[in-house]
Amino acid sequence: MNCILIEPAEMKADGTVVLADRRAEHIIAVLKVVAGDRLRVGLVDGPLGTGMVKNIAGAAVELACDMDPAMPPVPPVLDVLLALPRPKVMKRFWAVLASFEVRRIGLISAEKVERPYFDSHVLEPGFIREHLLEGCEQAGITRLPRVTVHRRFRPFVEDELDAWSPDTQRILAHPGAKPRIRDIVPGASGVLLAVGPEGGWNPFELKLLADHGFAETGLAGGALRSDVACIALMALVRDAQG
Amino acid sequence: MNCILIEPAEMKADGTVVLADRRAEHIIAVLKVVAGDRLRVGLVDGPLGTGMVKNIAGAAVELACDMDPAMPPVPPVLDVLLALPRPKVMKRFWAVLASFEVRRIGLISAEKVERPYFDSHVLEPGFIREHLLEGCEQAGITRLPRVTVHRRFRPFVEDELDAWSPDTQRILAHPGAKPRIRDIVPGASGVLLAVGPEGGWNPFELKLLADHGFAETGLAGGALRSDVACIALMALVRDAQG
Repeated sequence: MNCILIEPAEMKADGTVVLADRRAEHIIAVLKVVAGDRLRVGLVDGPLGTGMVKNIAGAAVELACDMDPAMPPVPPVLDVLLALPRPKVMKRFWAVLASFEVRRIGLISAEKVERPYFDSHVLEPGFIREHLLEGCEQAGITRLPRVTVHRRFRPFVEDELDAWSPDTQRILAHPGAKPRIRDIVPGASGVLLAVGPEGGWNPFELKLLADHGFAETGLAGGALRSDVACIALMALVRDAQG
Repeated sequence: MNCILIEPAEMKADGTVVLADRRAEHIIAVLKVVAGDRLRVGLVDGPLGTGMVKNIAGAAVELACDMDPAMPPVPPVLDVLLALPRPKVMKRFWAVLASFEVRRIGLISAEKVERPYFDSHVLEPGFIREHLLEGCEQAGITRLPRVTVHRRFRPFVEDELDAWSPDTQRILAHPGAKPRIRDIVPGASGVLLAVGPEGGWNPFELKLLADHGFAETGLAGGALRSDVACIALMALVRDAQG
């Protein structure tokens, strides 16, 4: 864990905060701090800073926080439109998406997405937030991605996408496509990356995405599992953005 | 699954093979084939080809295979030296490493690798092979990485590494390092990638690796979990190799 994230509402006016949940557990059992130690902390969607351990009482830790005056730098925009993976994969994937400092995550339907996936507990707001926080803490960042769920592919792409991710360059990975991400994404430009389901987009979906400005790019090598492909693509986008 | 992998010893001289394990289950329950259907198959460490379903009897499937005359193209060399992750992560990671068509995987110790990890069942040869095969089948490739385990960091790096991965360019990712992989890996050159433990290499390990020719490269963005970082780095290496 590279920082402990604190909700703004948890912090008192004098900058102290008392933690008594998984964060306190981590601070006590893993970091093994004593009074006077300093930790990296962050306010959710706010600045990073330092938390000095004032007091440990049972399972509770009191920190006196000194936050940086400035917000952390904003990375180039990366929005991800992801055909909803099966719940077992999605469960692990929230933290990964957060650690790439994705701005928006849109979970979308596709022919090859099984409908019951949308009723899984891994899409419950509390579950999502817990796992996004975990990813941010791992990465040492404070900005949580905004998550939206779109059960109907076509109306979303046709009617909502422009407002959902304005002014971004739209790309999708397609097996066999030749252009590389770094050849089509100029440094620092915002990107909207579409990642298909296990088994790929169907021809209708591909055409609709192409008609709405998504450029095809390929990945070197064999087929990757969709979550692994998504990590590979996000890494290539972040590298191209510089 | 992009191909069904068959061990050379399973195939009869006339090219037929009878499968009655997880592969047969997959062919019957997921692919829902009938006699006469054709599947993509591959011989382990051999060519790809086509398998025609001759017969389905109970839980067994008989295929008549027609293998390609040539081996699949050999990708540029990618060897991975990986500080052994915790078993829960390693378990899932075999298939991922295989899907990038890694040539050699060396699991190595480091200060921040807990010793009991080396006694885990996820390092048993049968377990490893099963999961590597799964990754190759997912990717539609036939070559399995060679896996070795090295419990002593320094003797391995000093005495064995040159023979273990000859003629490769050595790189390691280190937080904050500036050079990008694509700037230091010329197209098509062989690469040996070292990936540290959660928490990083210690200064001694870093210096030993630097003294043995490992160049530091950085990843854009925040800290990533070590398995996610490894995927990101493999994707960048494969992209640089072209």
